[in-house]
Amino acid sequence: MTFIQQLAAAWQKNNSLLCVGLDPDPAKFPVHLHNRDDAIFAFCADIVDATADLACAFKPQIAYFAARRAEDQLEALIAHIHEKHPGIPVILDAKRGDIGSTAEQYAIEAFERYKADAVTVNPYMGHDSVDPYLAYPDKGVILLCRTSNPGGSDLQFLEVGNSGGEKLYERVARLAAEKWNTTGQISLVVGATFPAEIARVRAIVGDMPLLVPGIGAQGGDIAATVEAGRTKNATGLMINSSRAILYAGKDESFAAAARQVAQETRDAINLYR
Amino acid sequence: MTFIQQLAAAWQKNNSLLCVGLDPDPAKFPVHLHNRDDAIFAFCADIVDATADLACAFKPQIAYFAARRAEDQLEALIAHIHEKHPGIPVILDAKRGDIGSTAEQYAIEAFERYKADAVTVNPYMGHDSVDPYLAYPDKGVILLCRTSNPGGSDLQFLEVGNSGGEKLYERVARLAAEKWNTTGQISLVVGATFPAEIARVRAIVGDMPLLVPGIGAQGGDIAATVEAGRTKNATGLMINSSRAILYAGKDESFAAAARQVAQETRDAINLYR
Repeated sequence: MTFIQQLAAAWQKNNSLLCVGLDPDPAKFPVHLHNRDDAIFAFCADIVDATADLACAFKPQIAYFAARRAEDQLEALIAHIHEKHPGIPVILDAKRGDIGSTAEQYAIEAFERYKADAVTVNPYMGHDSVDPYLAYPDKGVILLCRTSNPGGSDLQFLEVGNSGGEKLYERVARLAAEKWNTTGQISLVVGATFPAEIARVRAIVGDMPLLVPGIGAQGGDIAATVEAGRTKNATGLMINSSRAILYAGKDESFAAAARQVAQETRDAINLYR
Repeated sequence: MTFIQQLAAAWQKNNSLLCVGLDPDPAKFPVHLHNRDDAIFAFCADIVDATADLACAFKPQIAYFAARRAEDQLEALIAHIHEKHPGIPVILDAKRGDIGSTAEQYAIEAFERYKADAVTVNPYMGHDSVDPYLAYPDKGVILLCRTSNPGGSDLQFLEVGNSGGEKLYERVARLAAEKWNTTGQISLVVGATFPAEIARVRAIVGDMPLLVPGIGAQGGDIAATVEAGRTKNATGLMINSSRAILYAGKDESFAAAARQVAQETRDAINLYR
């Protein structure tokens, strides 16, 4: 099954557009995990097990693992998700971007080493920096388009070409939809902090899935996000929440607290579908 | 000493603008290394030891290590460079790019875990995706500006704003020079395949150092690169060569062959300074 097919099945099975982001910061872990060598794995696996029937995808952020020399725990975590919760795709949030011969190495990292189902990729270096990921026909490639951070506007919101006001992020969406997505593997990242721009991207890309970070801690509005981004069949979105779910609880019941917030978030999203 | 100061000292001491790129592909290693568990480290360390008096910097490409679960060998390699060849800065070529809280993790990865002196960063997500690296005052941050690959033109060569024809890569150069470089830590990547654009960037950024990939295997011209990019004191450039040096020889004398090509490349660069 391809990433896109897995995602569509998970949307249905769990009645959910919620992507649970796994950004494990040991300083925020419950005290009982502090002395475990595999604390990052243990924390994330408990979150995964508590939320797997509420999510359409899991999205581990590789930076949190790499900063702590915990690549082995990331491998174990993704293997755990595949084994215990088959059908829920794993997006490796790595935002890689390099020329072709190096991108091939990053594709090996994401898809062969970590066995992720999809990876996030930065489009700044253009089509040949994206192609090597598309050589894995079952995998998804999720390109940054309009990011949720304040500095996202520095480049992405510039008008480009003599194009009647087209912005750079719109050009990325158009290139992705019209030129680069020859194999149907591409999705886009569009931040929840800009609902009008989610709507613009949706108008450009048809039913292409959109990964939407920025609700919760970053302040994006769920209702506006869903209304702007849903497709005709009320799917098309992976709405990510990380910190609000991961750190909902502070003690041994953290996984139950995470489940509670995940359920509320899924249901809040579904209210507006 | 800061990265920029180390670089300036290495330019002088080794009379060299050559950056030796370390993109280790085990399939291309000499046969005698094939069965070593630490083949990647051993290969790169031999290259480093054979070229350290000819280079102004070493640039390991992290993708080649990550694809092979060889992060420990990358740590060992950078420690080896610092111990055996103090004063030659190490640029971690990682092209990271993410929002602030995640960029902090990538900065920990590059500067605290690997102890690199500088890291390459993708500017697509704007100023707050760059700031966390600048929190390490001795370190260098090298932003992608105009990359050497064919797809580099897809976005970087678009005209932006109502700006009289300013291209996206020129805007990146101007933002870097005029707004983001408050601490003097920023350099830029500009590909050797576009000498006219190296000259444009040099005109925008004054004496800011430029990392220039694309000579050798990618076809960039050394004379045109140096003429377009040198500063008034005939420095300002880190001209990278990877494959042409690493794979100059195929047997046990590979390091001597690499030294020979590195010396020829350094001298060819110096002809045009």
